[in-house]
Amino acid sequence: MPKKNAFYAQSGGVTATINTTACGVIETARKHNNRIGKVYAGRDGIIGALTEDLIDTSKEPAAAIRALRHTPGGAFGSCRYKLKGLDEHRAQYERLIEVFKAHDIGYFFYNGGNDSADTSFKVSQIAERLGYPLVCVGVPKTVDNDLAVTDCCPGFGSVAKYVATSIREAGYDVASMARTSTRVFILEVMGRHAGWITAACGLAVEKEGDAPHILLFPEIKFDEERFLARVDDTVRRYGYCTIGVSEGLRNAEGKFLSESGLRDAFGHAQLGGVAPLIANLVQDRLKQKYHWAVADYLQRSARHIASKTDVLQSYAVGKAAVELALKGRSGVMPVIVRKSNKPYRWTVGVAELKDVANREKMMPRDYITTDGFHITGKCRQYLEPLVQGEDYPPYRNGLPAYVKLRNAAVPKKLGTVFKI
Amino acid sequence: MPKKNAFYAQSGGVTATINTTACGVIETARKHNNRIGKVYAGRDGIIGALTEDLIDTSKEPAAAIRALRHTPGGAFGSCRYKLKGLDEHRAQYERLIEVFKAHDIGYFFYNGGNDSADTSFKVSQIAERLGYPLVCVGVPKTVDNDLAVTDCCPGFGSVAKYVATSIREAGYDVASMARTSTRVFILEVMGRHAGWITAACGLAVEKEGDAPHILLFPEIKFDEERFLARVDDTVRRYGYCTIGVSEGLRNAEGKFLSESGLRDAFGHAQLGGVAPLIANLVQDRLKQKYHWAVADYLQRSARHIASKTDVLQSYAVGKAAVELALKGRSGVMPVIVRKSNKPYRWTVGVAELKDVANREKMMPRDYITTDGFHITGKCRQYLEPLVQGEDYPPYRNGLPAYVKLRNAAVPKKLGTVFKI
Repeated sequence: MPKKNAFYAQSGGVTATINTTACGVIETARKHNNRIGKVYAGRDGIIGALTEDLIDTSKEPAAAIRALRHTPGGAFGSCRYKLKGLDEHRAQYERLIEVFKAHDIGYFFYNGGNDSADTSFKVSQIAERLGYPLVCVGVPKTVDNDLAVTDCCPGFGSVAKYVATSIREAGYDVASMARTSTRVFILEVMGRHAGWITAACGLAVEKEGDAPHILLFPEIKFDEERFLARVDDTVRRYGYCTIGVSEGLRNAEGKFLSESGLRDAFGHAQLGGVAPLIANLVQDRLKQKYHWAVADYLQRSARHIASKTDVLQSYAVGKAAVELALKGRSGVMPVIVRKSNKPYRWTVGVAELKDVANREKMMPRDYITTDGFHITGKCRQYLEPLVQGEDYPPYRNGLPAYVKLRNAAVPKKLGTVFKI
Repeated sequence: MPKKNAFYAQSGGVTATINTTACGVIETARKHNNRIGKVYAGRDGIIGALTEDLIDTSKEPAAAIRALRHTPGGAFGSCRYKLKGLDEHRAQYERLIEVFKAHDIGYFFYNGGNDSADTSFKVSQIAERLGYPLVCVGVPKTVDNDLAVTDCCPGFGSVAKYVATSIREAGYDVASMARTSTRVFILEVMGRHAGWITAACGLAVEKEGDAPHILLFPEIKFDEERFLARVDDTVRRYGYCTIGVSEGLRNAEGKFLSESGLRDAFGHAQLGGVAPLIANLVQDRLKQKYHWAVADYLQRSARHIASKTDVLQSYAVGKAAVELALKGRSGVMPVIVRKSNKPYRWTVGVAELKDVANREKMMPRDYITTDGFHITGKCRQYLEPLVQGEDYPPYRNGLPAYVKLRNAAVPKKLGTVFKI
């Protein structure tokens, strides 16, 4: 295959280590400059490809690309924009090929979750149908840890480390205040459909009585009375109670609690925030003083406390994606394969995109205790390796020194404007 | 003075480094075991002294005390319990002296904020009146940074580092999502009366356009229209807007916004959380997609990202407190004295407790920009040294390894029970 340029784009919610993967892709591509020309990144994800708004990463010095390894967020911009079926949105897929052709792009790397795996797969199909030679490789990423086939998802280990650390730290705080002040503390974490992040909070427990005492999973319907009884019992037993709750907690009818009708003074619905609702309940029914925190984006951008395991895996899938592409493997995605738990050993394997596309990996029921309020030993065995090791960013003036790229635009070659 | 035991207690809201101070007190006392017998800690603060519930810190091995240096929360328990005037609550002060006498305590170290300085001062007065020889030394601590005389407060630098790091990281996240998703991000931070923590968010700005774009201080009354115009302008200019808001933000009438009438589905008042209110406003008026986070206890317990400067100062005031006591200085408090900004140099000085007691150090108006939405260069010059340096805790199984002490009780010597 003659030398071709590569296209790389970030998709969906960003993570603390998606740029680590970008670093892996670009550094590896640069090493193979006999076969890969320039790496063009989509500005704001796939939208950049559709609108021919490409970023020339070759304008970035090696040090800037290296710094991506420790920089959170999506350096080229990401987007929530799902390409639908090939028949439905054929024009979009054809446009992609048109842009790739104009810029001599022979490699397509799409860094995202389920949807992105699906898009990558469809792009590989349309390229084939149109007879355009394009090697399409999906690159996994999601804090939700819900991708199929891969043992875990790049980005998840760092959120897991953040939430477990944070709830442990808050637990130390609440334990000291419980005599005369706060007795119940609630931390709301991400993961609307799958409880992986909620489960990760549970890693903070080393001994009976350690925080968190209760976890509220999106998989387990919220039972107010059972929950209150457990809080009450925990406060009696240990003097305080620390709770990790998923933003996706649902009531008995399957409705998100966060959408269950909090209204502001003007009667407007208050969106989001299940932690304050749980807090209110504790206050009303148990008369306990509470505090609550909502970590929100802090958890998925907390590069300062990234898991080294996650950083290594995030880099590795980027590197592997380029190596797969150079072998001409299209319609695939590098995945993490667990070889052993103790000691933890992993390697990078290969999955077919069609096996990953549009599937969600839910928490197995036996990862949650029978009572529904905590994780099992089996879950801990799975999660524990993923938070191992620290990978601190450099600091400047007391704060993490993250990079902002120049993101120079590639001159447009097409006269056409594509409306998204 | 003959060899005497010492009493140490933690008071009020705990911090990421109050145990660092405890470590400084106990390690220094142990070095002077020719003059200081045992260090007894109050279980749950001053309540432990009143109820004769003392912890024998001599039962803790040196490694456990050493580990306090990197452990958040209050290792012996803290409390929100203010001793009032000497005449009003004379029985309580007399009880303290009774307990101290029973346990041969000659040194009183009280680690807290304004209230605690006041209590320490009163204890020194009552001891003198009752003719009981007691050296009383206050030890500063508060994340609010509002103590008088001292240049800064142990505990504050670490919160400052946490909030500045967090809002920078979230800023990288939002910047990448802004094209098709979240455009406005709001982080709520502590500091009900003084805007020091809100100001610290501002340290994340290095260049024009960096997050945070807007800060909402408790010192500046909230003007909805001016705020919305600024958000709108920021989104137009930079594509997104990141906001740091104090939990103590007040409206034009001086009322806390967080108490301004959010109600749940049952009509119960929703307490706390100014970030969701601001978010709702942005959504209703500007139709921008938002996310919000409330850091709450996470910020003041985040020992994993403590400021090294803060850790050194927190230890230093504990050490200095013991050294002052050994010189017979009573009614005083060690304070941080700034000697120069660049390079930052500091030393430990001495303040009279009566000059610290019950006073609040507010943010000078010239630390906030004229428009009220950010910090000035003068403020940055003050804050920047306080977040310098990292002081990582050790990790075990991927999480910070914090210590839980045995906290063995000292056998009671008094037959009397004191009700608090």
